[in-house]
Amino acid sequence: MLDKILRVNLSELKVSTEPVLPEYHTLGGRALTSRIISDEVKANCEPLGGLNKVVLAPGLLAGTTAPSSGRLSVGAKSPLTGTIKESNVGGTAAQALAKFGLKAVVIEGQASEGWYILRIGLDSTGLVRFDELAGKDNYAVAVELRQRYGVKNTVISIGLAGERLYANSTIGVTDVEGNPSRHAGRGGLGAVLGSKRIKAIVIENSSISSFRPSEAFTQGARQLAEAITSNPVSGGALTAFGTAILVNTVNGAGGLPTRNFSDGRFEGVNQISGEKLAETVTNRGGKCGHPCQLGCVIKCSNIYVDQSGNYITSGLEYETLALLGSNCGIEDLDAIARMDRLCDQFGLDTIETGGAIAVAMEGGYLKFGDAQGAIDLVDEMGRGTPMGRLLGQGVQATGRALGVTRIPVVKGQGLAAYDPRAIKGNGVVYATSPMGADHTCGNAMGHPGVDPLKPEGQVDLSRDLQIFCTALDATGLCLFTIFALGGNPNLINIVAILINEIYGTSWNAEDLMGLGVATIAVEKEFNRQAGWTSAADRLPEFFTTETLPSTQTVFDVAEDDMQTIFKA
Amino acid sequence: MLDKILRVNLSELKVSTEPVLPEYHTLGGRALTSRIISDEVKANCEPLGGLNKVVLAPGLLAGTTAPSSGRLSVGAKSPLTGTIKESNVGGTAAQALAKFGLKAVVIEGQASEGWYILRIGLDSTGLVRFDELAGKDNYAVAVELRQRYGVKNTVISIGLAGERLYANSTIGVTDVEGNPSRHAGRGGLGAVLGSKRIKAIVIENSSISSFRPSEAFTQGARQLAEAITSNPVSGGALTAFGTAILVNTVNGAGGLPTRNFSDGRFEGVNQISGEKLAETVTNRGGKCGHPCQLGCVIKCSNIYVDQSGNYITSGLEYETLALLGSNCGIEDLDAIARMDRLCDQFGLDTIETGGAIAVAMEGGYLKFGDAQGAIDLVDEMGRGTPMGRLLGQGVQATGRALGVTRIPVVKGQGLAAYDPRAIKGNGVVYATSPMGADHTCGNAMGHPGVDPLKPEGQVDLSRDLQIFCTALDATGLCLFTIFALGGNPNLINIVAILINEIYGTSWNAEDLMGLGVATIAVEKEFNRQAGWTSAADRLPEFFTTETLPSTQTVFDVAEDDMQTIFKA
Repeated sequence: MLDKILRVNLSELKVSTEPVLPEYHTLGGRALTSRIISDEVKANCEPLGGLNKVVLAPGLLAGTTAPSSGRLSVGAKSPLTGTIKESNVGGTAAQALAKFGLKAVVIEGQASEGWYILRIGLDSTGLVRFDELAGKDNYAVAVELRQRYGVKNTVISIGLAGERLYANSTIGVTDVEGNPSRHAGRGGLGAVLGSKRIKAIVIENSSISSFRPSEAFTQGARQLAEAITSNPVSGGALTAFGTAILVNTVNGAGGLPTRNFSDGRFEGVNQISGEKLAETVTNRGGKCGHPCQLGCVIKCSNIYVDQSGNYITSGLEYETLALLGSNCGIEDLDAIARMDRLCDQFGLDTIETGGAIAVAMEGGYLKFGDAQGAIDLVDEMGRGTPMGRLLGQGVQATGRALGVTRIPVVKGQGLAAYDPRAIKGNGVVYATSPMGADHTCGNAMGHPGVDPLKPEGQVDLSRDLQIFCTALDATGLCLFTIFALGGNPNLINIVAILINEIYGTSWNAEDLMGLGVATIAVEKEFNRQAGWTSAADRLPEFFTTETLPSTQTVFDVAEDDMQTIFKA
Repeated sequence: MLDKILRVNLSELKVSTEPVLPEYHTLGGRALTSRIISDEVKANCEPLGGLNKVVLAPGLLAGTTAPSSGRLSVGAKSPLTGTIKESNVGGTAAQALAKFGLKAVVIEGQASEGWYILRIGLDSTGLVRFDELAGKDNYAVAVELRQRYGVKNTVISIGLAGERLYANSTIGVTDVEGNPSRHAGRGGLGAVLGSKRIKAIVIENSSISSFRPSEAFTQGARQLAEAITSNPVSGGALTAFGTAILVNTVNGAGGLPTRNFSDGRFEGVNQISGEKLAETVTNRGGKCGHPCQLGCVIKCSNIYVDQSGNYITSGLEYETLALLGSNCGIEDLDAIARMDRLCDQFGLDTIETGGAIAVAMEGGYLKFGDAQGAIDLVDEMGRGTPMGRLLGQGVQATGRALGVTRIPVVKGQGLAAYDPRAIKGNGVVYATSPMGADHTCGNAMGHPGVDPLKPEGQVDLSRDLQIFCTALDATGLCLFTIFALGGNPNLINIVAILINEIYGTSWNAEDLMGLGVATIAVEKEFNRQAGWTSAADRLPEFFTTETLPSTQTVFDVAEDDMQTIFKA
């Protein structure tokens, strides 16, 4: 049972444990981070000031034997978007926190100087001044802290991007190999942690687990696992090819961002596809079908190696391949993998980074397709040159500085890798999610029953998807369980049963969706108090005026319809 | 009588003249620009997209013999703030437009390529393709166009900043000598003109004036002129020392921005004061007491020359001396004058530029007081290096990219040169004006009856000042007439009488203030539709938490009070 909240105050350099408020009992993951941020953070505060907080929360099913349930939610007011934000990450952190019975870690205040780590250990938990880590990249930090505290410890850390308060900055989490390859990527939450002067969090690996599953739980978990692994996507394509399987799929749909969203099909698609990735990795002795967290039955991650078989990076994902690949006109897998690695080192979101480099290309700073130039730019972001710092502020800042008017952002956040003119449901998600252009708020790609090229039905589809994904993010289940669970009330009921077995609730599928609805309402209300209105629930104008060559469509879901999506 | 509106459509490359709508009859200047923007521009459009418009409007008294009545209002949705914006400029443009009977010029659409000038001439008016002007600075453009069309022509132009769509970009206007020394500086309106691909507007100098003043008008104008010139500020200190007289005054009040608003008194104040400026200029053969427009009785401008007596720049103003001087720790008049000149050439707002350089200094990019380094940075803005482009996006973008958290902006616009902890009324203006941190929306400096260091009375004072200044901006009268008119209903009634004599109205002082109230309401409603709420009517947090050394005060006017300023 996750029954404690760890409160970490950097202004007072104090750490304390408190019981979970009764009203938080049945919240977890995104539902809990958004609720705590909403309850404790002044909505119109400055994201990098002393009033903002960072909340880490495992999902409701963390620490249990439910399959693929180890996602961690990280919440804060975002310095990139100015909205409330939840950024979701795999790796080993959520399960590690759950073993300490921690339902959430709330990090508040600001240290006046120096750099700290938060150590969560069996013998002691507290802040440790650790200035020597300043300026180190996430890989170096993970090595150093795992050497010092034990190789099985989980390390959560920020890179140079977070230290320098880049609006594009992630929070890295070590994977099962101990590499910081998993990132809470979106919304610049690394900078919020950096503004508090937390460089890393080390969680001791505890073999103690207080979880004793009931028979009903074990049976439900087994049914879920079977459903997930027998699904052709979550148990087939994703395991075989990873999320990279989407490269060909989205390209086929005409929605693969190409050269700063100026086309939806990429002539070099075969060089960056999931099939090519799997072939390359396998031939070189890398790995596909690799789990990012223990207990995952989907295993969509991979280990990318160079021609000599040496580790380059892990988890080369679809969004990375599209944003740093086709969207920059780059068709060189090794170059993309190199940039992915640099992003992980520096703590940069690959989506925001690829989007920013693409607008720099559109602005004439370098040529589309210039792979080495793009690598150099990511390197500049790490070195902190003026151009690197500009890119570090994300797609919008970069585009504006270079005089680009086709800037693919919503609420200041770069679009994920689905052109909204080709997959219109995703356009509605980008426009209306409480957090800017996130695909993880609801992905309409390949959804049956709604023509992706037509405006009809997209608002309803987007609403349903957003609610579903929000509910999943509350449970800690990986979003990819949606392939099995989506549209299957029986299976969703099983998730509810698992929760009931632990929390003493009597939920069904509808109650679980209700948690999604309630969470989005909390987030929207926070945004309202922060100064947001539905006037910002829209896509950049060029998507509505410029025809996408691959599909011959513009984005034509009416703003008025989108603006009422959660009011119906 | 100003009875025509000139509509210029860059998408269609068409120019047409239309009659003034009856409801616009008694609007002018800011009242008219804001009304047209509000009526014609979709509030949540993209400022640099095809839906935004630029409106130029002389005031209600333009083209008459009323003293100091030749201010020009430029309106648009601002790419810097995202709000509606009016930026106000002296020089020769308003009177030149008035001679053509033009109540407003509305510039809309976007050309797909090339650069255009708009020529307003006695024989013909229209768009002229003029690509050769691209890349030229405002001084070069003024020389070329005055050579081509006549030295007495007025030139309105954008520099490299506007061409490159910098959020910090001005619209320059030639002064009585033909130099582009007067700028509609704030809010990045140069970029809006640039986004339409208008490089310049040339207005032929017409000696024809249809204005035949009534005796009542002539008598009223004379009374106004006498009141202005007999006032110790508008007819004394401002004429003798220019706005630079404020350097010592504001320093004495402890509110002179020093080293990025970290202090309110500057140890080098005597090197950049109005007294020092007047002495320097006079000794070298420059000029003080110089009018920026014909018919001005205040004559607060100056001509700054180098040690050999060669022209450097004109109109070295208080805000420039403070933002590029004390706020950067620079006490070198010649260096500040050089930067002012570069800003005029490139089309950069000196307030936004000084604020941006100061945050770059705070971010460690160069040292406070490094005058040559600061000059080099302004030069980089002109050259368009990555650092120059970053600075060209203004104070907020620069501060964020360099990891600075003390960023003095409201709604994305850099603060003018009054520390809001020392002159709290200005803090309320910054927070609540519809346009971000403008001092020209209402300047509480030296206002009797309200203690500038106390929160009491500041909201009411700010409201009154904002209404008054908005009304003045509608008339085309220079804001500095406020020293004579402020608190003097008899004189304000005379302004109303002048308007009545031309427009057939029967206004009094109250009606004139009513125009201010109505205009602010229009602007606030535009902002509401653009997505703004009162949550953004606040100062950066550090002003409320960090004590200003010079006055030992923080900014403590309650947010709740400020947020209701126009609701009472």
